[in-house]
Amino acid sequence: MVTVTMQVHFYDTDMMGIAHHSNHIRWFECGRVEYFRKAGVDLLELMDEGITFPIKKVTCEYISPVNFDDKIDIETRLFKLSRAQMVFHFRIVRKETGELLATGETQNVFTHKESGSIARLTDAQMGKFRSMYEEDKQALQ
Amino acid sequence: MVTVTMQVHFYDTDMMGIAHHSNHIRWFECGRVEYFRKAGVDLLELMDEGITFPIKKVTCEYISPVNFDDKIDIETRLFKLSRAQMVFHFRIVRKETGELLATGETQNVFTHKESGSIARLTDAQMGKFRSMYEEDKQALQ
Amino acid sequence: MVTVTMQVHFYDTDMMGIAHHSNHIRWFECGRVEYFRKAGVDLLELMDEGITFPIKKVTCEYISPVNFDDKIDIETRLFKLSRAQMVFHFRIVRKETGELLATGETQNVFTHKESGSIARLTDAQMGKFRSMYEEDKQALQ
Amino acid sequence: MVTVTMQVHFYDTDMMGIAHHSNHIRWFECGRVEYFRKAGVDLLELMDEGITFPIKKVTCEYISPVNFDDKIDIETRLFKLSRAQMVFHFRIVRKETGELLATGETQNVFTHKESGSIARLTDAQMGKFRSMYEEDKQALQ
Repeated sequence: MVTVTMQVHFYDTDMMGIAHHSNHIRWFECGRVEYFRKAGVDLLELMDEGITFPIKKVTCEYISPVNFDDKIDIETRLFKLSRAQMVFHFRIVRKETGELLATGETQNVFTHKESGSIARLTDAQMGKFRSMYEEDKQALQ
Repeated sequence: MVTVTMQVHFYDTDMMGIAHHSNHIRWFECGRVEYFRKAGVDLLELMDEGITFPIKKVTCEYISPVNFDDKIDIETRLFKLSRAQMVFHFRIVRKETGELLATGETQNVFTHKESGSIARLTDAQMGKFRSMYEEDKQALQ
Repeated sequence: MVTVTMQVHFYDTDMMGIAHHSNHIRWFECGRVEYFRKAGVDLLELMDEGITFPIKKVTCEYISPVNFDDKIDIETRLFKLSRAQMVFHFRIVRKETGELLATGETQNVFTHKESGSIARLTDAQMGKFRSMYEEDKQALQ
Repeated sequence: MVTVTMQVHFYDTDMMGIAHHSNHIRWFECGRVEYFRKAGVDLLELMDEGITFPIKKVTCEYISPVNFDDKIDIETRLFKLSRAQMVFHFRIVRKETGELLATGETQNVFTHKESGSIARLTDAQMGKFRSMYEEDKQALQ
């Protein structure tokens, strides 16, 4: 599990007085980026090789509103891993209290930017995710 | 069904060269807002009465990338309607070709802003959604 | 002058209940994009040639708040034109009343993406802006 | 001077491959929020008293592009202080190298939300900003 801590910005709020629900989708992205960093897989290098990782599916359940200035933890776990795709699970919790604010899941597929065809991680790249993945899988069962 | 046409802005794009996937969640919102307008239910009036309609759940399936300057139609259908909640279905299609770019669903629950307790639509408000809802329900079967 | 009409989205608002002030900077961009389109200069073609047009300076004066669901006109005029840079003037007005909501100015410099050095418009490209520019310059005096 | 450190998100980028220029305006806001916090003036309390602080003017000069994953420092200094308005100066620098990426200025006016008329800080509130302001003013000369 990789945890990113964020503070909710004023510009994240909407006229209902809470963080707009599209932010959660962005926070999930922050979690994925950090996960790649911790695994030692460089997103910019992948992109330089012409490989992108577009989102195919996202779900988010909103449990409790997130407010301006809240400190939140984005907990990211790798739930499925194959050469071609990854499924991540997310929990957003209020940092100080541990209160669960939202859960979600994203599926992304590695893709050759030019052709749009599916790309596959190398053995070396797979290896970098392996141990974190095994740990996460167990935690999610 | 209510259709909103949008043009994808430069600021909607990310460094993968496509519209960022959080925009779809925002486009769904545009669809809901227009649906309320067509039904004759005033969101601002509801908010003045202390009723908000936070999203409880969102899902989006991304079928094909959306590019800068694309003209897209956001097709919004009401799938479930009760006094306390609404479930909407969305299709995002490329306007010129009709190509399906994404589908999605949102669930929102009417809520008293102060107490956080569930609010309920009045008969009059329900009545305004009824005919559009019956038509949409049939189309979605 | 090129005019773009926009409707203010719910997600554009913040907890002060008005459109967040960073949106004006984005609306200016919509105005520039439309200006290029009207002039017949293709931004994507420029980018394919490795030319980008980063903003060097932006100013915005906020005269009156912009609210959710407001219909606004973004009026864009070209104020300075040279091979290497453009300065645009913007007026944001409420469509129905003509009330002036904000004014602004942006300066952008054509840049070779790889080297970061200044790029220059061709005679053909300059020619496309010329007549609109002459008209705008006169209006701004 | 108050410094906020941020890491540039993937969703902050646009298809030119750099952080979109509207983000700088949002980063300035983060600086102001932190400045209020350091001074001990509670923005939410002000808003509960019906006082908002809309931006009247913003300027930003973009010196060097900000890239995905860059760590940046937002340095915020209070340049003018009166009961009714504040002018802040901002410098955005790359954290690791100190390279100056952008400078900017915002002017905001305290406003009664209901009437739209100008609001004024109390002696107590003014007092909280005073020492930071004196220090900043000197640094900016």
